[in-house]
Amino acid sequence: MPKPFYGDESPIVALATPPGESALALIRSSGPGSVALLSRVFSRPATLRKAAGNSVVYGWIRRPRDAVSRKTGTRAWELIDEVLVSVYRAPRSYTGEEGADITCHGGTATVRAVLETLEAAGFRESLPGEFSFRAFMNGKLDLTRSESVMELVRAKTGAARERAADRLAGRLQGDIAVMNRRLVEALAETELHLDYDEEELGLSGEGLPGRELVEDTLQCLRNLAGSWPGERLYQEGALAVIAGRPNAGKSSLFNALLGEDRSIVTAVPGTTRDWIEALVNIRGIPLRLVDTAGLREDLQGPPPSAAEEGGGLDRAEEIGIQRSRELLDRADLVLYVIDGTQGLRDEDKALLRTHAALPHPLILLWNKADIAPPPESLLPEFLPPESLPPEPLPPEQVPSLPLSATTGEGLEQLCGAIETALKGGIPRRGSETGLGSRRQKELVDRACTALEEVLSLAGRGEPLDLLAPLLREAVNALGEITGEVSTADILEAIFSKFCVGK
Amino acid sequence: MPKPFYGDESPIVALATPPGESALALIRSSGPGSVALLSRVFSRPATLRKAAGNSVVYGWIRRPRDAVSRKTGTRAWELIDEVLVSVYRAPRSYTGEEGADITCHGGTATVRAVLETLEAAGFRESLPGEFSFRAFMNGKLDLTRSESVMELVRAKTGAARERAADRLAGRLQGDIAVMNRRLVEALAETELHLDYDEEELGLSGEGLPGRELVEDTLQCLRNLAGSWPGERLYQEGALAVIAGRPNAGKSSLFNALLGEDRSIVTAVPGTTRDWIEALVNIRGIPLRLVDTAGLREDLQGPPPSAAEEGGGLDRAEEIGIQRSRELLDRADLVLYVIDGTQGLRDEDKALLRTHAALPHPLILLWNKADIAPPPESLLPEFLPPESLPPEPLPPEQVPSLPLSATTGEGLEQLCGAIETALKGGIPRRGSETGLGSRRQKELVDRACTALEEVLSLAGRGEPLDLLAPLLREAVNALGEITGEVSTADILEAIFSKFCVGK
Repeated sequence: MPKPFYGDESPIVALATPPGESALALIRSSGPGSVALLSRVFSRPATLRKAAGNSVVYGWIRRPRDAVSRKTGTRAWELIDEVLVSVYRAPRSYTGEEGADITCHGGTATVRAVLETLEAAGFRESLPGEFSFRAFMNGKLDLTRSESVMELVRAKTGAARERAADRLAGRLQGDIAVMNRRLVEALAETELHLDYDEEELGLSGEGLPGRELVEDTLQCLRNLAGSWPGERLYQEGALAVIAGRPNAGKSSLFNALLGEDRSIVTAVPGTTRDWIEALVNIRGIPLRLVDTAGLREDLQGPPPSAAEEGGGLDRAEEIGIQRSRELLDRADLVLYVIDGTQGLRDEDKALLRTHAALPHPLILLWNKADIAPPPESLLPEFLPPESLPPEPLPPEQVPSLPLSATTGEGLEQLCGAIETALKGGIPRRGSETGLGSRRQKELVDRACTALEEVLSLAGRGEPLDLLAPLLREAVNALGEITGEVSTADILEAIFSKFCVGK
Repeated sequence: MPKPFYGDESPIVALATPPGESALALIRSSGPGSVALLSRVFSRPATLRKAAGNSVVYGWIRRPRDAVSRKTGTRAWELIDEVLVSVYRAPRSYTGEEGADITCHGGTATVRAVLETLEAAGFRESLPGEFSFRAFMNGKLDLTRSESVMELVRAKTGAARERAADRLAGRLQGDIAVMNRRLVEALAETELHLDYDEEELGLSGEGLPGRELVEDTLQCLRNLAGSWPGERLYQEGALAVIAGRPNAGKSSLFNALLGEDRSIVTAVPGTTRDWIEALVNIRGIPLRLVDTAGLREDLQGPPPSAAEEGGGLDRAEEIGIQRSRELLDRADLVLYVIDGTQGLRDEDKALLRTHAALPHPLILLWNKADIAPPPESLLPEFLPPESLPPEPLPPEQVPSLPLSATTGEGLEQLCGAIETALKGGIPRRGSETGLGSRRQKELVDRACTALEEVLSLAGRGEPLDLLAPLLREAVNALGEITGEVSTADILEAIFSKFCVGK
């Protein structure tokens, strides 16, 4: 049997819903002839074959038993599951092909038996993203919309989902199309002039036809490129580590943030028992929150005395320190908790000195503020300049907040401070659409570079035949974003990152 | 807002597929007026409202933004997700009510946003099993078929699924209906005679009208009751513990059984790190296989010398022993592995003596048979009678097998021995349908007891007016199996055990 590949027309099939016990599961199929193929293992074959597009047919998936009945001479069937089949006729389907969605019961054994029956009937298990690949090839979705489908699937918060839905509705595709049209116009004018002698027309690069179109488009593309850090934050989320001395209230803060967030997405068990991790939704940002309470580490509390005396660390302690270092290296933000009833201790100062030297933003929290009100002027006491390393974070840039993890006081302000810290330096997003993937960002950057070069050459009066290829480069980059210009390799690389069944 | 209850007619909604990231998710809704309600948050409301039953409508789920546009005076909408809606019109639906299945994208944030939008529009989150409850109340499914739906969802192996599908197709319902009809006939004849003077008719219990009907039905019910241990084995599975001295090859056997079984259902992490557990499919029986390799226990290897000397166990060792005891108490089967290269050691004999005293069946395995062939006569050496406790398992009843976990030799025979050991004493299943739940079994038992009493009283010549209530008791028990005779309490107890969305 030849290896399946993106672009063949075999009837394909895949479980499109998560595996596991549930009321129902959805198995998706697509490909020319797939409805007739399905009818071979369906209890009402003629009804299914005649079914109109966008109609639902009730029946049983069944498979032939090995033996043919001696009495009746007919084939005996084993009933597999009672199902509903939604029939789609080309081109009115997700893929643009004929296909059928099978709603069956959700047990693992049932789903397996239905899939096995379909594969025995001649369907092939789909490759990752193959349904979307076919939709793209059949002109149902451009690449920005295809990518937004996987974004939607992976979205952890409402804000992330909203951005993806916006792109799925085609807004980014539309914006890119407008820019592309402008550049093609500028390119066409330029190439028209190339057919004539420049002296004759009295034109050089300085007189680049459509110069304003190019300048406008470059500005739009720069805005679009500027949207990526913000979009990426909502798509990929950020990692926040809660640090502080033992008993400062780290776990209470962790639980308070979990409780505050009524839309917790998932609780992720840590890779070891040393720390707890949860995914919380902070103002739409998917924040991986780590409580290092169980972690024995030098950045968390004072090292064991043996280590201080150079007496050597045991293996477990070394691993603990190594892990905490890795965690802090990856952190986008540290929430440092001070026990308000004890005030700023020397250990805190030592730990803060270390944190301030790391590149991540730091938020200082004066915990237990309900029973130990913070001093009037927080900052000087928190970060006495002499305790800081040579190039400290300027104290005025370290947000600090009074907090009570117990009463909830200060939590709302903390969420605001987290948002500000993570979005610092990211331009505010207006109503325009943002970019949906790193791939798109790289192509926008490529187009920007080419257009900047066009304008720079034009400014130096260089001839138009040097400018035209750069304009074309920008047009191609935009075409690659939507998939108008794409090679098979690129397409396969994009779609193979999708999940199976999409 | 009044507390929702089974039996109201509110439009209900639920996620019917497992939560998690996947291509698609299926959200199910049902209730009078549910399609019109859905149209309020659908991008093509008129098309949806006019849609025929069993048709699919494409569109977007959307929700009104707070603000009404000043420019146009119309409401602005936020697009939530691109969906396919399958419309069902009463009574042609699972529940028998009007309803709609919404196929949306499978991300957690997307599913949540769609559900929130539907709930804001007026749908209420369904109670567990509420869709099936409504299907039952509307006469679409009897109780045996309703229960088989949850069986299908929970089925772990093909054999379990096949049995459930059989009941879903209505075979058990049909068999019960036949028996019920016969008993009703016998009851009717009996009650007819009660209206006359018995002397006049010359009849007593001895002359029970329809006595043959009662005898036949009792036999059928006994067969049905006898099916439950087997059905239960396939539904609930069994627990097999691998035991033996350290390095006898317990983990190799565990892995060999996992590898042999090409249809492993799930790997279940142990509740502690002390043992590994996996669910394997042994000839259709879902077997929870436990490798106690990491467990420090007295039944597994020699106790630590301190304990032998009465020196006391430390806390961790006590917990380990406690856990292994609990595990062995729950075990349905023990696979005892002997290291063939070392032969039967005193430690093995001690352990075997303990196991033989426990109620679970035991299978002895002579491992590493590829390099250390088993002695010609296995049993006498394995279980020398003098080493056994006062009431040992007779040696001839202990299956013993040569095995090589490395080469796979003997694995097939082992699977057969496991099946035999677990099904020992369970009557062989013919082609007839079996019972699907403990509830059904209890009702069948109740009917059997009543009918046995009827026949016994009739044999003693007791008057018919003593027999009639017992016959009615049996009829009612059968009626409860299918749900013809049921109280609201019983129904709620049954359906609330279902999963949400079913």
